Amino acid sequence: VADLDQPTWRPASVGLVGGGVIGGGWAARLVLNGIDVRIHDPAPDSARRVEELLAGARRAFASLTASPLPPEGSLRFCDSIEEAVGGVDFVQESVPERLELKRELLVTISLHTCDDAPIASSTSGLRPTDLQAAMRLPERLLVGHPFNPVYLIPLVELCAGERTAPAFLDRAAGLYRAIGMHPLRVRREIDGFLADRLLEALWREALWLVHDGIATVSELDDAIRYGAGLRWAFMGTFLTYRIAGGELGMRHFLAQFGPALALPWTKLSEVPELTDEFIDELVAQSDEQAAGRSVAELERLRDACLVSLLQGLRSNGVGAGATLASWERGLMAPVAGTAPDAEPVPAPLQLVVREIPPGWMDYNGHMTESRYLDLFSEATDGLLRWLGVTGDYLARGRSYFTVETHLSHLAQLFAQDRVKVSTQLLGHDRKRLHVFHVISRSREGGDGDQVVATAEQVMIHVDIAARSSTPADPQVLARVASLAQAHAALPHPERAGRRISLS
Amino acid sequence: VADLDQPTWRPASVGLVGGGVIGGGWAARLVLNGIDVRIHDPAPDSARRVEELLAGARRAFASLTASPLPPEGSLRFCDSIEEAVGGVDFVQESVPERLELKRELLVTISLHTCDDAPIASSTSGLRPTDLQAAMRLPERLLVGHPFNPVYLIPLVELCAGERTAPAFLDRAAGLYRAIGMHPLRVRREIDGFLADRLLEALWREALWLVHDGIATVSELDDAIRYGAGLRWAFMGTFLTYRIAGGELGMRHFLAQFGPALALPWTKLSEVPELTDEFIDELVAQSDEQAAGRSVAELERLRDACLVSLLQGLRSNGVGAGATLASWERGLMAPVAGTAPDAEPVPAPLQLVVREIPPGWMDYNGHMTESRYLDLFSEATDGLLRWLGVTGDYLARGRSYFTVETHLSHLAQLFAQDRVKVSTQLLGHDRKRLHVFHVISRSREGGDGDQVVATAEQVMIHVDIAARSSTPADPQVLARVASLAQAHAALPHPERAGRRISLS
Repeated sequence: VADLDQPTWRPASVGLVGGGVIGGGWAARLVLNGIDVRIHDPAPDSARRVEELLAGARRAFASLTASPLPPEGSLRFCDSIEEAVGGVDFVQESVPERLELKRELLVTISLHTCDDAPIASSTSGLRPTDLQAAMRLPERLLVGHPFNPVYLIPLVELCAGERTAPAFLDRAAGLYRAIGMHPLRVRREIDGFLADRLLEALWREALWLVHDGIATVSELDDAIRYGAGLRWAFMGTFLTYRIAGGELGMRHFLAQFGPALALPWTKLSEVPELTDEFIDELVAQSDEQAAGRSVAELERLRDACLVSLLQGLRSNGVGAGATLASWERGLMAPVAGTAPDAEPVPAPLQLVVREIPPGWMDYNGHMTESRYLDLFSEATDGLLRWLGVTGDYLARGRSYFTVETHLSHLAQLFAQDRVKVSTQLLGHDRKRLHVFHVISRSREGGDGDQVVATAEQVMIHVDIAARSSTPADPQVLARVASLAQAHAALPHPERAGRRISLS
Repeated sequence: VADLDQPTWRPASVGLVGGGVIGGGWAARLVLNGIDVRIHDPAPDSARRVEELLAGARRAFASLTASPLPPEGSLRFCDSIEEAVGGVDFVQESVPERLELKRELLVTISLHTCDDAPIASSTSGLRPTDLQAAMRLPERLLVGHPFNPVYLIPLVELCAGERTAPAFLDRAAGLYRAIGMHPLRVRREIDGFLADRLLEALWREALWLVHDGIATVSELDDAIRYGAGLRWAFMGTFLTYRIAGGELGMRHFLAQFGPALALPWTKLSEVPELTDEFIDELVAQSDEQAAGRSVAELERLRDACLVSLLQGLRSNGVGAGATLASWERGLMAPVAGTAPDAEPVPAPLQLVVREIPPGWMDYNGHMTESRYLDLFSEATDGLLRWLGVTGDYLARGRSYFTVETHLSHLAQLFAQDRVKVSTQLLGHDRKRLHVFHVISRSREGGDGDQVVATAEQVMIHVDIAARSSTPADPQVLARVASLAQAHAALPHPERAGRRISLS
């Protein structure tokens, strides 16, 4: 079942308690999904770290999707738990993994937040029954266990405690889906839930192999990432083994490789002690593996890889890629703030305002030409949403495709330029839209804007399944007509109707 | 160190003993890399299964790389081991995982193959010292443990026995690199080597969770593929945890999560017994998870996902993607390039041939419009290189900038479509180039090409420092004139000189 086919829920505001790698990751995912966030963390540098995480997530999202992101939610740093959780619709706790600390803070949260707000703990292994014991209205508490980086990894494990009310679990699942995640229900409450049991088993064995001097951390990572790790990105261990069994499937695989389970391949009965010497050895090997790259650099590399993987899986409609596709279709739903229902005024629409990212430069040091078309596409998407071509409409297989574009470049753009795109409707019929976009750069000091590039475009309305053009639906045509009327009095752009010629 | 920077070795012929999922996978990888293969397997349907594996591998390779593959090697099915291994340069044994069987067949192999041919065993866990004990010239024996599907997964674990000569290990590593794999040396001989120790630890825990009724095989696979599995595709567990430690890295992570290792999260001390009832349960759950999809269908899905992941990682230069890039550079080496010094002929230049990557799709499921301009830019860059606007010229601050573009979209493009771009020079003067590009999709079966989009463009020559247009250098103008002369007789493209209009 696709994530989008299940209920989603978009709260207006979320309160976060704890702003480390996990809490900051939640903040980034929520804010970029247009949800207001309040966050409390007593660490003095917490705000800086959260802002850095958000900047990294923003960069990743810019590559992740071509769908229009909603206007960012606000991010407020709060001095107390009370301020962070009072009046919000949902609370997510992500403090260090100590039962007594979590229990104490969850009691405080339970006293100060709304009676109908779900309270989720990011714990990676503590039981919700133990966490909720002393809370006011403990039925609100559930585990929502995410994975790092929270803003890109879709998995979140949901686990109820003995006193959790199912309605709160459902609400949490709806929120997680709305922000592009894949909630996985852990049906029986156990320490470590599902994922960390598997991860711990693997990590424990890996630690022994380092401890015994068999292999380095780098060799062990290579043993995963060049091999089984590639498969684990889209199939887990069981489906992989089914295939490895050949045409006879799982039964054959068990017959062939089951006996090896009994071989003494893994260290079963002991846990390697984390002595100072062993920790020093692990840290030294880890430093060598990192080869001077900072954690920030590694995070950028990790995010770039995750973006590529998610996009690759999206094109195959599999696993985390299907979750991404669901979320993107959701993004096409009308979002408050862009005012798609507003009455048109006799001025070009202003649908895009943004900053040019550094990654858009080419070997000439200026913005590469295809990124101009990205900006114009963003404006076209904004226009389509304004006309009512949104999630539901697209889900019925109806959309506008671009058939012709004429670009003129009048100046160059550079990293961190602030630009806006204005859009004028030049003509229309039942199937087609004829538009003219202008990219302008905001000059410093607000001294007027400079026109940088223009695009004249024709879009045609299509029935995607039939692979043919077809008139738009009446409610869209009505919006088109009303915009056309408002734009009728605008001057015809000087560069519209150009043909290319050297003479 | 990139795989390509290390020595490679291309034998003319390889003998394979065992033609199941692993042996057939070896056959496919070798044949598609232009190496002749002889294979022996007593199973009556072995030839059919190997041919099917080869067909699947061929399909995967067609999407995997745009680099020119060598002519396929031959594939000969042999009635005996003697025939399969006599006179070949390298032997790979992939028979079932039983020590006595492998020892016996390896003795036979050792008696009939050349004295200087390395003999590799695909065993996933048996020690090479035990395997080589009774062989003639046992120094030739090593473990080369691959992963399924062998033709796409780059990892191969190399392990020497006590009597293995290093030269044979080096030769095997060279072969594996030459056919696009990443050999990982297991420095200390242990049962299960490195990868399977880690995989077994995870799988054993997963089996317990099913056995105890905590979760189904499908839920456990989801716990991996929506979460940690995505990270494991490019970073193993240690580098991932270093990042999870935040700015303080591995030491902080160990301090925070090390204690959890001592929690009773995993079943350490026992192995679940594979009773008939438990096997039935596993098989039933696996059937449900497969939801009627045959292993062949799952294999196609798996291969498509792996291809996307490898390409995604290639664009980030990481792990298995770097291995792919190395292999592709190797493929380009002996092949004539686009010959930038060639004399122009009276036909459009063919400067771009490539496959459409999955990341280029948008919410309509087809290639997003700015990527058309990326393809046209690639063709323009090719044209500029052809004209001599290369590194040195650019370094002097001279280049061509695009000033105007007219795009027409005639069909859609989808992930993994194979396209080429042709480029015709329509006009020029001392400062300007007027060109017409056409993107065509190659149809399956070579049944002509379909025109997908066109671009008419004007580029102007600039002095970047002076921020002004300026005539191109004489040697560039000479190349332009010679190309213009060759293209003068070409028909004027129908869509050149269009202006946009709804009428």
